Amino acid sequence: MTLQEEFQSILEEIQSQSPLIHHITNYVTANDCANTILALGGSPVMADDEKEVEEMVALSSALVLNIGTLSQRTLRSFLLAGKKANELGIPVILDPVGLGTTDLRRKLITEILAKIDLTVIRGNMSEILNVHGTSVITKGVESSEGTENGGEEMAKALAKRFQCIIAITGKVDVISDGKKTYRIHNGHEFLSKITGTGCMSTSIIGLCCATGESPLYGALLGLSIMGISGEIAATHLEQEFKEGLGSFKVHLFDALSGFILQDYLERGKIYEI
Amino acid sequence: MTLQEEFQSILEEIQSQSPLIHHITNYVTANDCANTILALGGSPVMADDEKEVEEMVALSSALVLNIGTLSQRTLRSFLLAGKKANELGIPVILDPVGLGTTDLRRKLITEILAKIDLTVIRGNMSEILNVHGTSVITKGVESSEGTENGGEEMAKALAKRFQCIIAITGKVDVISDGKKTYRIHNGHEFLSKITGTGCMSTSIIGLCCATGESPLYGALLGLSIMGISGEIAATHLEQEFKEGLGSFKVHLFDALSGFILQDYLERGKIYEI
Amino acid sequence: MTLQEEFQSILEEIQSQSPLIHHITNYVTANDCANTILALGGSPVMADDEKEVEEMVALSSALVLNIGTLSQRTLRSFLLAGKKANELGIPVILDPVGLGTTDLRRKLITEILAKIDLTVIRGNMSEILNVHGTSVITKGVESSEGTENGGEEMAKALAKRFQCIIAITGKVDVISDGKKTYRIHNGHEFLSKITGTGCMSTSIIGLCCATGESPLYGALLGLSIMGISGEIAATHLEQEFKEGLGSFKVHLFDALSGFILQDYLERGKIYEI
Repeated sequence: MTLQEEFQSILEEIQSQSPLIHHITNYVTANDCANTILALGGSPVMADDEKEVEEMVALSSALVLNIGTLSQRTLRSFLLAGKKANELGIPVILDPVGLGTTDLRRKLITEILAKIDLTVIRGNMSEILNVHGTSVITKGVESSEGTENGGEEMAKALAKRFQCIIAITGKVDVISDGKKTYRIHNGHEFLSKITGTGCMSTSIIGLCCATGESPLYGALLGLSIMGISGEIAATHLEQEFKEGLGSFKVHLFDALSGFILQDYLERGKIYEI
Repeated sequence: MTLQEEFQSILEEIQSQSPLIHHITNYVTANDCANTILALGGSPVMADDEKEVEEMVALSSALVLNIGTLSQRTLRSFLLAGKKANELGIPVILDPVGLGTTDLRRKLITEILAKIDLTVIRGNMSEILNVHGTSVITKGVESSEGTENGGEEMAKALAKRFQCIIAITGKVDVISDGKKTYRIHNGHEFLSKITGTGCMSTSIIGLCCATGESPLYGALLGLSIMGISGEIAATHLEQEFKEGLGSFKVHLFDALSGFILQDYLERGKIYEI
Repeated sequence: MTLQEEFQSILEEIQSQSPLIHHITNYVTANDCANTILALGGSPVMADDEKEVEEMVALSSALVLNIGTLSQRTLRSFLLAGKKANELGIPVILDPVGLGTTDLRRKLITEILAKIDLTVIRGNMSEILNVHGTSVITKGVESSEGTENGGEEMAKALAKRFQCIIAITGKVDVISDGKKTYRIHNGHEFLSKITGTGCMSTSIIGLCCATGESPLYGALLGLSIMGISGEIAATHLEQEFKEGLGSFKVHLFDALSGFILQDYLERGKIYEI
C-alpha cells in the first residue's frame, strides 16, 4: 500500500472503532490530550492509580505513558499498565517528558525500557538523546531544537535497539523503525509556543496505532496530523490578521477536529531518507 | 410555582449569593469546571486532601464528588467530605465517572452510596446502569448513548431507592425524584465531542442546588443550562461557517457566561412524563 | 533607571534568556500558567515530587510555590524546593492560595514563612490578611475584593517583616518592598471571572524576577502585564460586540503573547504613594 492508502485505512478505522486510548499522563496537559483524542474520533481515558490501571488497559486499544508530572505514587502504575498492555498485545506509546532533568525520571524510564516492550517512543531531541544514554541536560519540557541537524542515525540505532518506532519531534520530525527512516517537514513555530503539543502528538500517535495498522505508519500519520493542523491553524490566524497564541490554540483544535485525508494530500511533506 | 418561576428564583439567588461550590474532582476537567461555576456567577474551590476537605466543605454551599481520576490518596477524602456535608445539611452531588470500568471505582461508589446521603447523582446511561447494579462495561468516560431508548423507569426506581434525584444525561436527559420524572430534549452532538461537559453539568447542578431551592428543579435547570448553552454555541459556529471543536468550546463558555432566563424561555424543552 | 527602562530591560532579558520557571502548583490552572510563561517568552516546568524538585530547581531561574491543590504528598516538596532555591540564590515567589480556609494551608504557609526566604508573596486581600496573622475567612480562591480600601500599610509592614516584596491583587494592586509602595490601577473585572488569573499573575512575577533584575520591578511589571493584557482582551470583546468569558480568555492569551513595552507606555497606571 502507498502511504496515502495506509493513512486512509487508519483514519477510517479510527472513525468506525472510536478506540479507547488509556493515558497515564500529567495534569498540565491532560485536558488538551483528551480533547485531541475526541477531536480525531477516538475515546480518551485518564487513570493513574496502581489499583485500577491494569483493568483500564484491558478495556483499551492503546496505552500512552507520559511522565510529565510523575510522582512516587504513580511509578508502579506506569510499569503495571505497561506489562498488562504487553500481555494483551496492546500498543504502548512512551513520552519520556523531561528526561535529562532529574534522576527520578531517568530511573523510571530505565525501568520502563528494560521491562516493557514499547511500540513507539516520542520525544524531543534532548529527551531522545537521553534515551540513547547521551547525558544532555534538558531545559524544561518544551523544546523544538535539534532535529534540523540530523538525528536519523540515532533514531535508526535506537529503533533497532528497542525494537520499536522512534519519533523525534522538532522543527523537522525524524521517524525510524530501524529499517526505514523518514523526515517530516510539516509544522509551525507556534506549536512550540503553547504547552502540550508534544504530549498531544504522543496521544495522536497512540490513537493512530490503536486500530491495529502498522505502528510505523501510525507514527508518521500521527505527527503529520499535528504538523499539518498547526499549519492550518496558522493560516486562519493570517486570515484574521492575528498573531496571538490564544487564537492559535483554538484554531489548532478546529483543525484537528476537521482533519481529513485531503489535508495530508495537500500539505503532507514526508520524505523517506 | 411554575418551572419558570423556580428557575428565575434559583438564577437570582446564584447571582446574589455567589455560592461556594467545593469540588473533589479530576485533574482532566478541573479547569473547565471552575470556569463553568465562575461563568454562571458562583465561586468554585477544588481541594482533595483528607486533612482539609471537611473544613472546606464547612465553608461551602454545595459539594461535588467527581471520581474521574480517583486515587487511593483521595478515597477517604470523598467519604469524609460527604459525611461532613450530610452533618451540615449541604447538598452533595455525585458524578460516578467511569463506573463500570474498574473495581476501584465500583468499591468507592458502593461505599459512598451506603454511607452518604446524596442529593443528586448524575451520570451517563452506562454509569447509572452500574449504579443500578446492572454490570455494563463502560467504554471510557465520554458517552452519550442510551437515553433515547428510555431510562425513565430505572431513574425513578433509583431515585426512590437512594432518596435522591437521578439525572441520566445523553442525547436526551432523564431526571427523576422518584415521583416526578422529566425528559430534556436540549443539547447538541458537539457536547459529547469535547471533554468535560459531563463533569461541567454535574458542577452546574451543584451550583443550582446550592441556594437552598428544590434539588429537583436544581437538576432540571442545571442540565437545561448545559444543553441550551451547547445549542447557542452551535448557532455561533453556524454563523461563522465553522465546524471546529476549538471554536465550539469557546462559544460554549460565552453562552454559559451569558445565560439568562430568557434563553430557557426561548429554547427550553423539558417534558414531564 | 526609570520604570520604563527597568521594564524594557526585564522584557529584553526574558526574550534573550527564555528562563526556566519551575512551578509546584495546582492541577486546576497548571495549563494556563504554563501557557502564560510560554506566551511571554519563558520556559515553564511543573514537577512536584519530593524526590525531584531539588534537581528541577537547580536547573531553573525562578521557583513558583502555589498551594492551590496542596496535599500531604507535596508538603515536603514545597519546603525542599524552597530551601534549595535559597541555597542557590534563585528567586522564590509564593502564592498562598486559599489561605484562610483550612488549617492544612495555614500550617504549610507558616512553615514556609519561617524556613524559606521569599522574594515575592502575591495574594488577594483575604490571603494577605491571613499572612499578616489577621484571621479572615477566605471564601474560595477567586476574590478581587478589598484593595480599593487600602492595604498599603499592611503591605509595607509585611514587606519589612518578611524582607520581601508583597503584592496584593484586586481591583487595585498594591505592591511594596517596605520602603517604596505602589498602586496599579490596571485590569478589568472579567479577570476575576475566569479561573487562574491570580495564579497566572504569580507565574508572570516569577518570570519577571528570573532574569536577575530587581524583584520590586519584576513584581510591578508582572502585575502590569496581567492588568494591561486584561484591558486589551476586553477591548477586543467590545470590537466584536461580545461579552463572553470564553472569548475573553482567548483574547487574554493573545494579549499576553503580544505584550510589548509599548502596551505599558500606552496603558500603564502605576502610582508610587
